[in-house]
Amino acid sequence: MSQYNAPLRDMHFVMKELAGLEQVVQLPGYEEVDTDLSDAILEEASKFAGNVLSPINFSGDQEGSKWHNKAVTVPAGFKEAYTQFAENGWTALACSPEFGGQGLPKLISTAVNEMWKSANMAFSLCPMLTTGAIEALMTAGSDALKQKFLPKMVSGEWTGTMNLTEPSAGSDLAAVRTRAEPQGDGSYKIFGQKIFITYGDHNMTENIVHLVLARLPNAPEGVKGISLFVVPKFMVKDDGSLGERNDAYCVSIEHKLGIHASPTAVMAFGDHGGAVGYLVGEENRGLEYMFIMMNAARFAVGMEGVALAERAYQQAVWYAKDRIQGTELGVRGGPKVSILKHPDVRRLLMSMRSQTEAARALAYVVAAAMDAAKHHPDEAVRAANQAFADLMIPVVKGHSTEMSIEVASEGVQVHGGMGFIEETGAAQHLRDARITAIYEGTTAIQANDLIGRKMAREGGATIKAVIAEMRKLDAKLAAQNGADFVAIRKRFAAGVDALEQAANWIVAIFKDDIKAAHAGSVPFLRLLGIVAGGWQMARAALVAQEKIAGGDSDPFYAAKIVTARFFADHQLTKAQGLTDSIVDGATGTLALAEELF
Amino acid sequence: MSQYNAPLRDMHFVMKELAGLEQVVQLPGYEEVDTDLSDAILEEASKFAGNVLSPINFSGDQEGSKWHNKAVTVPAGFKEAYTQFAENGWTALACSPEFGGQGLPKLISTAVNEMWKSANMAFSLCPMLTTGAIEALMTAGSDALKQKFLPKMVSGEWTGTMNLTEPSAGSDLAAVRTRAEPQGDGSYKIFGQKIFITYGDHNMTENIVHLVLARLPNAPEGVKGISLFVVPKFMVKDDGSLGERNDAYCVSIEHKLGIHASPTAVMAFGDHGGAVGYLVGEENRGLEYMFIMMNAARFAVGMEGVALAERAYQQAVWYAKDRIQGTELGVRGGPKVSILKHPDVRRLLMSMRSQTEAARALAYVVAAAMDAAKHHPDEAVRAANQAFADLMIPVVKGHSTEMSIEVASEGVQVHGGMGFIEETGAAQHLRDARITAIYEGTTAIQANDLIGRKMAREGGATIKAVIAEMRKLDAKLAAQNGADFVAIRKRFAAGVDALEQAANWIVAIFKDDIKAAHAGSVPFLRLLGIVAGGWQMARAALVAQEKIAGGDSDPFYAAKIVTARFFADHQLTKAQGLTDSIVDGATGTLALAEELF
Repeated sequence: MSQYNAPLRDMHFVMKELAGLEQVVQLPGYEEVDTDLSDAILEEASKFAGNVLSPINFSGDQEGSKWHNKAVTVPAGFKEAYTQFAENGWTALACSPEFGGQGLPKLISTAVNEMWKSANMAFSLCPMLTTGAIEALMTAGSDALKQKFLPKMVSGEWTGTMNLTEPSAGSDLAAVRTRAEPQGDGSYKIFGQKIFITYGDHNMTENIVHLVLARLPNAPEGVKGISLFVVPKFMVKDDGSLGERNDAYCVSIEHKLGIHASPTAVMAFGDHGGAVGYLVGEENRGLEYMFIMMNAARFAVGMEGVALAERAYQQAVWYAKDRIQGTELGVRGGPKVSILKHPDVRRLLMSMRSQTEAARALAYVVAAAMDAAKHHPDEAVRAANQAFADLMIPVVKGHSTEMSIEVASEGVQVHGGMGFIEETGAAQHLRDARITAIYEGTTAIQANDLIGRKMAREGGATIKAVIAEMRKLDAKLAAQNGADFVAIRKRFAAGVDALEQAANWIVAIFKDDIKAAHAGSVPFLRLLGIVAGGWQMARAALVAQEKIAGGDSDPFYAAKIVTARFFADHQLTKAQGLTDSIVDGATGTLALAEELF
Repeated sequence: MSQYNAPLRDMHFVMKELAGLEQVVQLPGYEEVDTDLSDAILEEASKFAGNVLSPINFSGDQEGSKWHNKAVTVPAGFKEAYTQFAENGWTALACSPEFGGQGLPKLISTAVNEMWKSANMAFSLCPMLTTGAIEALMTAGSDALKQKFLPKMVSGEWTGTMNLTEPSAGSDLAAVRTRAEPQGDGSYKIFGQKIFITYGDHNMTENIVHLVLARLPNAPEGVKGISLFVVPKFMVKDDGSLGERNDAYCVSIEHKLGIHASPTAVMAFGDHGGAVGYLVGEENRGLEYMFIMMNAARFAVGMEGVALAERAYQQAVWYAKDRIQGTELGVRGGPKVSILKHPDVRRLLMSMRSQTEAARALAYVVAAAMDAAKHHPDEAVRAANQAFADLMIPVVKGHSTEMSIEVASEGVQVHGGMGFIEETGAAQHLRDARITAIYEGTTAIQANDLIGRKMAREGGATIKAVIAEMRKLDAKLAAQNGADFVAIRKRFAAGVDALEQAANWIVAIFKDDIKAAHAGSVPFLRLLGIVAGGWQMARAALVAQEKIAGGDSDPFYAAKIVTARFFADHQLTKAQGLTDSIVDGATGTLALAEELF
């Protein structure tokens, strides 16, 4: 089994050449940051990921978190790794300096987070959920709540959780039934059961801060009657020390396909008299606060897709170089060779590599847009970047995660029979990847958000602007010599044409036949993911060509052009077929009578 | 969790309307068989599959087979189920009547075997491997060996295994190192270790008959120096009773991603002085005998793909009808509905359904061709059917299995978060399906066989004949009314065009640039799988339309047309993109220097 080795070369390239790190660090608010600091942080993170987190990834999967008597114990090494993680300041990376964070640009924290996710996805979920809880408190919490909870969450001394789902309230949070009863002293008692709570309990820290969606008495039905509460595992006294155990217990954990080290808790609030909670923000606005954080959370899960694809690729390359089997094609009686020589193994590896690089490039570009949307001095620039990020986040989430499942499965295939044996490690990446297309909103939820709120609602303004931007690349691609650029240009142009046809159809049909539009939403999300990935790969190839023309002999650049060409000929070629399925496919999707399924 | 319910309606339709059951049962050698008998057998098999095998599928997965002290114990219920399976005569279904078998047509045994695989794939592997061992002995065994072993294998009293793989000899069997030493009395002593031996040990029967590939002293290197031996677990005396324990032991079993109930054994032969074995057929012809059986084994694994896709579909439909979440699209404030109403859930289910039905139809048509290839009185008809089956078996194997992984993953997606929880059962189908694209030759091995032995070697004669046959459907499709047939005709015609373009390219390039041809072999296999599936779905739609026109009000027919239409708009639409990747994609696949991976 291979250990994770952060792809620093590609990360730096994407950050600097595609996502504009130079411009990002010049944004107001990032005065303390420069590209040297960014390089140094990535270097340190790569060591922690490779040396501390990666080695406990497989063992953590095999051992799993264990539940006993309402408490969860994480696998061997996790508590020690977490302590070190927090002590090294990694929990505070993107948090506000006001509460002890380092306030780094999203672009930099995105690259760092990719490393945690690649090295040990199950581990990475704990700080990821904590970040979500921190953001919820930052967004809407009172000063008192912030002062009480944020410093220790930012420092990593305490972790956070997000308690949304209930057995009957999954994708449809309007159905939340957990109750909150005012106690007259400003606090509430919470009663109800939540499921699928990531790191709902664990033994890595002394306290856990649960954020819980619940209904107040007489709250309106549906999404407008849900409030957000903070419910600590242990009560926090005014001096910051821990008080009594709160009535919030993990009553079981799930037996899952993957991420075994990450406990997925069933949480019981109020089984012994009521869990003490504090209202975050205003009554009945809980779901609204959640939606503010949703983009960040969805983006983070999209990065899990990129990260798992990268890890699966590294494992598959390691095996393909190591495994000797058969002779080289066309060389009769030749020596036995590594399977990397076999064309279909190369096809699988190039497929994994090119899709991972494309998804990383798109995600980092979106991260930089989030930085600009928040910090750029020009309001119009902020708005344009926000619109771009809003459009692309469901794509980063939905496409990267679906891609990672396919890529992890390709990784298993590279291993042949050994891929099916757990000790090889390839299968874990497939099992872990499978959840990413489900949680934080399934791919269909992302796709419906994409075609509805992000496209139809504004008449397709942003997607049209993006398509216009894509088309600008054509002249630059046409100006290059060589078959690689001929191929990239041809496939990318055809991909953009297909995307435009599908986007126009979606925007037009949305008003007239909303079901037909939604029947094509996931294929459209995949189409946009492929074409936007091809866009970034074409941009990357152009930069690489420029470097080569300038005399740079780093073989990274030639490899980037080959990888972009592969992506063009093997991914962009899917575009028109997807458009055909979107535009013509709704009838077949919707026609069958329910009883005939 | 749902239990398996055999899709008898579709099975009967495919057998009778597409695969020509009426013609098959009239072939010489099948005098005892008619369609009534076929119906009765399927009915009985469906009961056994649904009532006996399906209920121990999930429990078998969770418990797994256990190894202790060189012996394997199967999960609870497996031994009892196996005993009943054998007593009911299911092991003997397709075996020769000469040794107690029922000699049924391949077409009928294919449908029956699909049920075992759907109901409990891990269980089904034991009789499947036994069938392989029976066929090897039938093919090449001496009369004495046949008399000694076959009756009890056919009756199911003993099971069989196939011992091919060694740690350094996986896809490349030329590297087999297990030795066989002649003892002078006509027997041999076998020394070596074999891995990945399915049901290499178990406690369901009193004896196990291992077929083992090994090298004789001074055998030529490579594939022409491998002989086949039969090595029983317990020696068999002349009176048929069991003698001493042979020196063939299971020294461990693998920890796998799926098929946990099926023990995958590491077998040690000869660690205690040598395992007694008997030569099957002639010296150094072992691999040749294996290849004779290979088509049957590969077809059988292809049926696992069909079967797992069917099971995953049934589970997903059951959940989608049961799960209430959200309101119907476009119905604001309406009641909560089952998720079957949501367009993307329908899209996933239609994708699963249409691909499963297409793959079943193609496989059954190929099964009928195998029957005709063996039994038709006209030699030219036999040869044509054999050529068709030879061409299509790698497609049935490679495409159905890859499809089943995608379909099982779609099944997980339909379940949302519950899909990731093992108790739901959906994840097991994905884990089980993952091996099918690997064992009995990976998809690349199938694809290389397809483009090499089955196409290039004969200048593409058979694929061209198949394409010509496909084109004949156009006039019939054109003669139908309605948008469904317009869509099916258009997409199928475009698919056949794309297939022809790719096939011509493969045949032409094979001589000039064998690596480029192989870089496209798997995409070509998938392309042929899709277009051939579309062909069968178009045939099915035509039959359905004829039934409807004839006044048959069975809603099955309308559903078949909708399903064919969905397949056309969502699968056949992929054809041209695949062709583009095949024809233009080799450069990107092969260009990257090895050290840059």
